[in-house]
Amino acid sequence: MKDQNKIIDTSVAQLLKSYEDTPELTNLQDFPLPTRECVTEITHNLESILFPGLVDSVEYQPGLQYILANRLVETYTTLRSLIIKCLQYAKHCGTSRISLEISGKSSETQAEEIIEQFFGKLPHIREMLKDDVLAAYKGDPAAKSYGEIILSYPGVRALAIHRLAHELLLLGVPILPRMMSEYVHNRTGIDIHPGARIGRSLFIDHGTGVVIGETSVIGNHVKIYQGVTLGALSIPDPEKESVTAKRHPTIEDNVTIYAGASILGGNTIVGAGSIIGSNVWLTHSVAPDTKVLYKQSDQNVRFLDNSKKIQTQPLSIEFYI
Amino acid sequence: MKDQNKIIDTSVAQLLKSYEDTPELTNLQDFPLPTRECVTEITHNLESILFPGLVDSVEYQPGLQYILANRLVETYTTLRSLIIKCLQYAKHCGTSRISLEISGKSSETQAEEIIEQFFGKLPHIREMLKDDVLAAYKGDPAAKSYGEIILSYPGVRALAIHRLAHELLLLGVPILPRMMSEYVHNRTGIDIHPGARIGRSLFIDHGTGVVIGETSVIGNHVKIYQGVTLGALSIPDPEKESVTAKRHPTIEDNVTIYAGASILGGNTIVGAGSIIGSNVWLTHSVAPDTKVLYKQSDQNVRFLDNSKKIQTQPLSIEFYI
Amino acid sequence: MKDQNKIIDTSVAQLLKSYEDTPELTNLQDFPLPTRECVTEITHNLESILFPGLVDSVEYQPGLQYILANRLVETYTTLRSLIIKCLQYAKHCGTSRISLEISGKSSETQAEEIIEQFFGKLPHIREMLKDDVLAAYKGDPAAKSYGEIILSYPGVRALAIHRLAHELLLLGVPILPRMMSEYVHNRTGIDIHPGARIGRSLFIDHGTGVVIGETSVIGNHVKIYQGVTLGALSIPDPEKESVTAKRHPTIEDNVTIYAGASILGGNTIVGAGSIIGSNVWLTHSVAPDTKVLYKQSDQNVRFLDNSKKIQTQPLSIEFYI
Repeated sequence: MKDQNKIIDTSVAQLLKSYEDTPELTNLQDFPLPTRECVTEITHNLESILFPGLVDSVEYQPGLQYILANRLVETYTTLRSLIIKCLQYAKHCGTSRISLEISGKSSETQAEEIIEQFFGKLPHIREMLKDDVLAAYKGDPAAKSYGEIILSYPGVRALAIHRLAHELLLLGVPILPRMMSEYVHNRTGIDIHPGARIGRSLFIDHGTGVVIGETSVIGNHVKIYQGVTLGALSIPDPEKESVTAKRHPTIEDNVTIYAGASILGGNTIVGAGSIIGSNVWLTHSVAPDTKVLYKQSDQNVRFLDNSKKIQTQPLSIEFYI
Repeated sequence: MKDQNKIIDTSVAQLLKSYEDTPELTNLQDFPLPTRECVTEITHNLESILFPGLVDSVEYQPGLQYILANRLVETYTTLRSLIIKCLQYAKHCGTSRISLEISGKSSETQAEEIIEQFFGKLPHIREMLKDDVLAAYKGDPAAKSYGEIILSYPGVRALAIHRLAHELLLLGVPILPRMMSEYVHNRTGIDIHPGARIGRSLFIDHGTGVVIGETSVIGNHVKIYQGVTLGALSIPDPEKESVTAKRHPTIEDNVTIYAGASILGGNTIVGAGSIIGSNVWLTHSVAPDTKVLYKQSDQNVRFLDNSKKIQTQPLSIEFYI
Repeated sequence: MKDQNKIIDTSVAQLLKSYEDTPELTNLQDFPLPTRECVTEITHNLESILFPGLVDSVEYQPGLQYILANRLVETYTTLRSLIIKCLQYAKHCGTSRISLEISGKSSETQAEEIIEQFFGKLPHIREMLKDDVLAAYKGDPAAKSYGEIILSYPGVRALAIHRLAHELLLLGVPILPRMMSEYVHNRTGIDIHPGARIGRSLFIDHGTGVVIGETSVIGNHVKIYQGVTLGALSIPDPEKESVTAKRHPTIEDNVTIYAGASILGGNTIVGAGSIIGSNVWLTHSVAPDTKVLYKQSDQNVRFLDNSKKIQTQPLSIEFYI
């Protein structure tokens, strides 16, 4: 036990020195950030406001309006505290990459105004999510009911959190939207930056490994399968170039992108109605209604003799219109 | 504070209207569904029944039989309540895609009969899982002991939950099996639809991004690496075609499928003993003992001069037997 | 209720027999293993020691040293108990693949000596992690502050746990390091075996689906995107070959590996400064400063007529220097 105390004392001294030497990994000032646990809690509360009776176990009849009011009060209080933390951290500890609106208002007043606007957006977000759920029902024969989709489709869950986080980002909240997107990335494997602009009726199936970058733009009625990347072609040097330049592609209406395809670059536009095949790597624009897919020879594979190598099929990317 | 009350009142009114306008995202009737938390709990209980002394921290000696009995009673009670919920939801809120057996029995009686049969399957499921664990031990030199495999191999965890969920699906339980598969998809990145039929001694290594679709059939002694998709070639229109058609491939015994390969289509059969290489995209059947792999030229890369481009290696897919 | 009791009794008898028949899935001896919950707790404690004020919600001023001491005492106690469990399990239940140092010391003494050395490494681990955080800030224009990176970049989280688990492995702790790596694989989709040797300033962006095998070696200033595999080319037969042979590649300094690339084989060395393109499949060494990428024809896609197939672009892998 004596030994243990010595080890602890030594470690305390070493680590206090380490905290001083490496302050980049600490936040010991007066401006704490939200913890992951708080972000989990607020996100879960918001999910239960969006999908009443589905992500919670409350008995709703007959007191729906009181339960809802209570839930909104809780959400208001927690969200206010989290937004104030993020605003103050950004004002005092942020880098040049955070552009906060200059304002004479206190963080408290700003937070309250943001929440009022954010709450006003919730009915619109629910409408958007209805279209997403219907797109999943239409797009997947394995889906048996809306309830099943809301409770067990990772794509719907990722979109619900994205649509909330995107609104908070537009309203000027720093850090929290990105923590919300990582919350749901953790749970679904779907990594959508809160800055991405996504239209109606998006269906992300399975979803593990999907990456949708900060400046991506996605139209309506798009389908995206697991492992699809909407990414940047190269990394700008933030010291020289604007970090707000469009680095990620634009996907127009009614496009389908199959598993594992990578579409890269801020000038890349995939025209409406196009189909991008599995594992295709695309770095330039394609016109509307183009199909892009890896193509192997059309013949069936036959086994003609006993030679070891039976057939080589040259590989190409083909474009159809 | 006065302001806050006004915001809450306004939001309550707006959201109540939104719940009426968009009932697809609510479940405010008398037929609640399981919550994600309940599914987490029942799945964890079942895991601890399958792997006693490994996923729990109970001291087993000497009271094993009493601890087990107690755990089964708890599981019985929770599972009964969840199955009843799912049956009633499906009967009253389901879509035409759910085919429930017509039966004069109450949901309660049905649930009890299902659990009796399900409990009877547990020893068989444990036998299957033993083969899966041995396959992992044999297939991965990094595996040091069975305990380590059960506690830290995501493929084994995903298969354990799949084999449970598949039995519940066969016994006619709606929704819950799909929620269980999403529970473990969330934790492992491995997305196996509970409808998939999987033989003995499957080894899924690493596993992130693996998708195994609803009508897939997998033989014995198959190995699957991360990012492999067993998927559908195209999406049938559920209004016109049967949603129960076979849309996903059949993988025969002793096949190995390397990372990132996509095998698509309900008529695609990968013959026994075949090897499918990394990132291969395969949409037609191959005979037994075929190797399919991307092939670059055989020469080593050499740097002959100072020209910028040193070598182009045409790419092809080669089939060997 | 009578029926229920009968079902429970039958199941208890069947499962007790199953536990005897299939002991591979049980651990009912006197040597329990850590549970997943304990590993979650210890890992979270270690994270809060590494990143004070960021992954916890404690008010640090003014009592930092007391909070830290208390946290170290808790960590010491839990870690001691976990390491003893792992050592005793390995001694009594392990396989020939576990090479424990022969030593006359008790597991208790061994555990205490290990923790003393491990605590002494924490300041060095923090220095390494600082470089990782700076690499993320430099490598991703979407990153706005160090706090945001530590709280919401899965690559940084995976590296933090890896650097801890790797030290424990080097100090001779069995099983626990692998459980810690699976803990963070579960949360990030990034699967780094604790045996992998990783240099300074690694940036793993997005990360879902990344696999870094047991005998991989990674230099300094390397960038790795989602879905990259550093894997084995073939599986040795553990009965015949040494399981400690190098099976995974070496990545030298300043290499960038884009999304979905697979680099395989223990003799494969990617020379310093090289760039490996998206989805490339590489199984041999390349010299320093080589670019390897899939190349489609250079022309832009044009739509010249109304024929259905508009263009075929042969695919190749090109090597540049």
